[in-house]
Amino acid sequence: MFIYNAWYMGAWADEVKPLGLLGRVLLELPVVFYRTEDGTALALEDRCCHRALPLSHGCVVGDQLQCGYHGLVYDRKGVCVKVPGQERVPAQAKVRSYPVVEQDEMFWIWMGDPALADPALIVRHPWHTDPAWVWIKDRYSINANYQLITDNLMDLTHVGYVHQRTIGGTPQAHSEAETQTTRSETSVKVTRWMPNSVPPPAYVAAFKFNTATVDRWMEIDFFPPAAVRIHTGAKDVNTGAREGDRSGGIAFVGLNLQTPETAKSTHYFWSGARTYEVGEPELRAKLLTSLPATFAEDKVVVEAQQASLDREGGVPLVMIASDAGLVHARRLVASMLENETQLKEAAAKPPDARPVQEPT
Amino acid sequence: MFIYNAWYMGAWADEVKPLGLLGRVLLELPVVFYRTEDGTALALEDRCCHRALPLSHGCVVGDQLQCGYHGLVYDRKGVCVKVPGQERVPAQAKVRSYPVVEQDEMFWIWMGDPALADPALIVRHPWHTDPAWVWIKDRYSINANYQLITDNLMDLTHVGYVHQRTIGGTPQAHSEAETQTTRSETSVKVTRWMPNSVPPPAYVAAFKFNTATVDRWMEIDFFPPAAVRIHTGAKDVNTGAREGDRSGGIAFVGLNLQTPETAKSTHYFWSGARTYEVGEPELRAKLLTSLPATFAEDKVVVEAQQASLDREGGVPLVMIASDAGLVHARRLVASMLENETQLKEAAAKPPDARPVQEPT
Amino acid sequence: MFIYNAWYMGAWADEVKPLGLLGRVLLELPVVFYRTEDGTALALEDRCCHRALPLSHGCVVGDQLQCGYHGLVYDRKGVCVKVPGQERVPAQAKVRSYPVVEQDEMFWIWMGDPALADPALIVRHPWHTDPAWVWIKDRYSINANYQLITDNLMDLTHVGYVHQRTIGGTPQAHSEAETQTTRSETSVKVTRWMPNSVPPPAYVAAFKFNTATVDRWMEIDFFPPAAVRIHTGAKDVNTGAREGDRSGGIAFVGLNLQTPETAKSTHYFWSGARTYEVGEPELRAKLLTSLPATFAEDKVVVEAQQASLDREGGVPLVMIASDAGLVHARRLVASMLENETQLKEAAAKPPDARPVQEPT
Repeated sequence: MFIYNAWYMGAWADEVKPLGLLGRVLLELPVVFYRTEDGTALALEDRCCHRALPLSHGCVVGDQLQCGYHGLVYDRKGVCVKVPGQERVPAQAKVRSYPVVEQDEMFWIWMGDPALADPALIVRHPWHTDPAWVWIKDRYSINANYQLITDNLMDLTHVGYVHQRTIGGTPQAHSEAETQTTRSETSVKVTRWMPNSVPPPAYVAAFKFNTATVDRWMEIDFFPPAAVRIHTGAKDVNTGAREGDRSGGIAFVGLNLQTPETAKSTHYFWSGARTYEVGEPELRAKLLTSLPATFAEDKVVVEAQQASLDREGGVPLVMIASDAGLVHARRLVASMLENETQLKEAAAKPPDARPVQEPT
Repeated sequence: MFIYNAWYMGAWADEVKPLGLLGRVLLELPVVFYRTEDGTALALEDRCCHRALPLSHGCVVGDQLQCGYHGLVYDRKGVCVKVPGQERVPAQAKVRSYPVVEQDEMFWIWMGDPALADPALIVRHPWHTDPAWVWIKDRYSINANYQLITDNLMDLTHVGYVHQRTIGGTPQAHSEAETQTTRSETSVKVTRWMPNSVPPPAYVAAFKFNTATVDRWMEIDFFPPAAVRIHTGAKDVNTGAREGDRSGGIAFVGLNLQTPETAKSTHYFWSGARTYEVGEPELRAKLLTSLPATFAEDKVVVEAQQASLDREGGVPLVMIASDAGLVHARRLVASMLENETQLKEAAAKPPDARPVQEPT
Repeated sequence: MFIYNAWYMGAWADEVKPLGLLGRVLLELPVVFYRTEDGTALALEDRCCHRALPLSHGCVVGDQLQCGYHGLVYDRKGVCVKVPGQERVPAQAKVRSYPVVEQDEMFWIWMGDPALADPALIVRHPWHTDPAWVWIKDRYSINANYQLITDNLMDLTHVGYVHQRTIGGTPQAHSEAETQTTRSETSVKVTRWMPNSVPPPAYVAAFKFNTATVDRWMEIDFFPPAAVRIHTGAKDVNTGAREGDRSGGIAFVGLNLQTPETAKSTHYFWSGARTYEVGEPELRAKLLTSLPATFAEDKVVVEAQQASLDREGGVPLVMIASDAGLVHARRLVASMLENETQLKEAAAKPPDARPVQEPT
């Protein structure tokens, strides 16, 4: 059901301190993130091989993880290197280890075949470390399938309805934006322009435009299986924005990472960044502080959707024009899933298979 | 499992104001009740045909309902008449509409074949609008099958046990009442008389009888699938009550409408009315204010019953004499269900069937 | 799944007063404990044969139990002796009765074939009534299978890890204790010695040893299916403790009774006793008051284990040396279960079978 051969965001970097640990279920598998004494980020299966207690109930000792039940000690690779009270460590005493990359203030984890875990495939987000930008972030637990969150982001005509009390504006302006959807082999881009339009009050409050109307843009990039980056902004009308020059305006970058917890629950990591120079200090602050409430509005919607689909999943849905982005996004995900299924069938032993037997 | 070709109470009329809406699951189907600007009561399927968000997250515009996700607009019949951002509305863009009748301060809804929805079949309750009567009401969410509530009401020998702290009295008086059960094709009536009996303290406090003992009555009418009306009262002994003259006494009318939400949860609407002239003001008030606590006692019982049946549903139950009313009530319900099943099998296309396909 | 032909602790004796009653699910069956007016402890099926309401919603009248719904009355054997409002009591109107023994401040119940319920099989615990001992007790609701609690108790190397903030000590001392496991046909004993060891701070605070190091012991007795008694203590080094003379030291007795509620929830009854003479009053008190927190730590562990096993039950577990006690305990339980299954198959009509038919 899930794509395992992919990088997922597993945690914000600051969720795990040196010698700290964090248990989290990702793609229905238990994972414990931890940092060694020198700060290195690691991830193991969060389930002691002895009696199945999550290792996140234990503690980090140097660069090893010790179970909090009977003290078994695991190294970075998940190999048990010590069983208190006995000399010999059983050969089968080990847990899975997962490749982790700490980058752009995030932990990225690869849950599939480690041989395929190429860090170059990770979505970069330099705005998190660029001193010219300020940003806020959070993680929301969403009781909905992760693709419902992607759907939400790929069709921003919802902004005028769902977010009318936060970042919205005239619904009409959003639904009549010039929209273009393009798809590559590894991404989907939805570009929306509202040229020569009245800037929303939030923009006006935060920035001094020189023209009464502005050219506004929204650029949504989907990177499968579960990342969406959104550039939004505006500048003076007819000053080259559409030709590619966005300097001298107001600009935001949003990052959305919807990592599946289970089929019906999602860790929704989000951040919102804006250029630091924009506007007066108190106005600047205001522009980002509307984000938590905004994403909370999305949470209500996708959870209600999930409950509705659970009740009557078989009833067909009707497509409309603004679905183009999400349809392409879902097709990319379906295609990755199909590839992975074929890969597994081809392999004698799939990467995430384990021998199954009864516990004693 | 449910009888769909029947009128059910869906909401109290004052739960939905003009331009207001209310989402509620009835018979395992999502329904949104709303009022147009001019106050007309309507009900649609509470599930947008586009992305399945409940329409109760949207808003009423004039006499139309607009989805709160991407702004699709539905008319009174559930036909989508506008999709923001595009000219053409897809032909299949529609949701179910349900016949609604607002009557006696209640919304009645027909969830089955609309062609059979005859308003004359609705149980009337004129006491809700008769200025000579005062009444209170509520809706309780009960975690039990609706028929367990009907059972409860059809055997009032429970009053002395379950309600000993509220409206009860001597259990013996209740279990030894003269009881007659009659059944027609469309209703069950249980009549209980306690002639020449000592009036309960609550009656004495509220009413000045001229005789030390009174003739008391309880008359329970079941109208399938899910309505029970109960007349109770007393008057001076041997002054014609049994012959049909109930004037000059104290009288109450209770209405109980147990509309299924799911197989194991019920919207239990109840009201209690009494003649306005009776007793001193503060005593009058007292007589009705015991009702919420009384129905809360029933809630405890039927929910415990449901949990017990869930645990061991297959263990047989033993019938006793006072079950006569509920046995007849259950037979009427079973018979309606049987009729509806036959009707569906006879029809080429059952009224509540919809083509089923995978969502895209 | 459960062993029914065995005594289980059902309640603390003081949980049920004369004329009091207590509903509790044991081995997935509803039980109501009650005391007659003269204090006799009894147990019936907690489900009225009429409409399935738990009898624990009723009341005790003399030595009979009356249902709180329509007033059916049951005698000590579960036979219905009165149905209000009718002369005849239906022959099939009865509920199961269970043998109960009140002993050592506990109610013991036998859920299987009453013919096999020999009170001599009940684990005795004289410390609860010995005036030379003081003790505390409680019941914890644990969301885990009862055998996970037995496992926990049979391998006390967990004490240094799980209980480091309460009764723990150096993990190493616990894991390097001299441990011997012996198994009889009806019990498992794990004996652990820490000779010539530094006494833990709690011991030192509570007792005046004459030697700098002490001989410490832990003796764990498992009595299937669900009882574990633990003797712990210490005395001056080389003063005969290992040879059997434990006088003149500090000693504790813990009792643990993990009665299944369902396959994944357990009533965990525990008590902790110590000799009354030991230490100064305030120190004595301290020694026992750490127990509630200690058992709460175990609750966290076994519930996390259960959740982990629920997620991936099929993944094999790895055995280590300190598992010897729990492995033997599980084998005894498996053997009892096997015996009971054979007994049932041999019998024409198993003791707990009942005819199954649809409720009317």
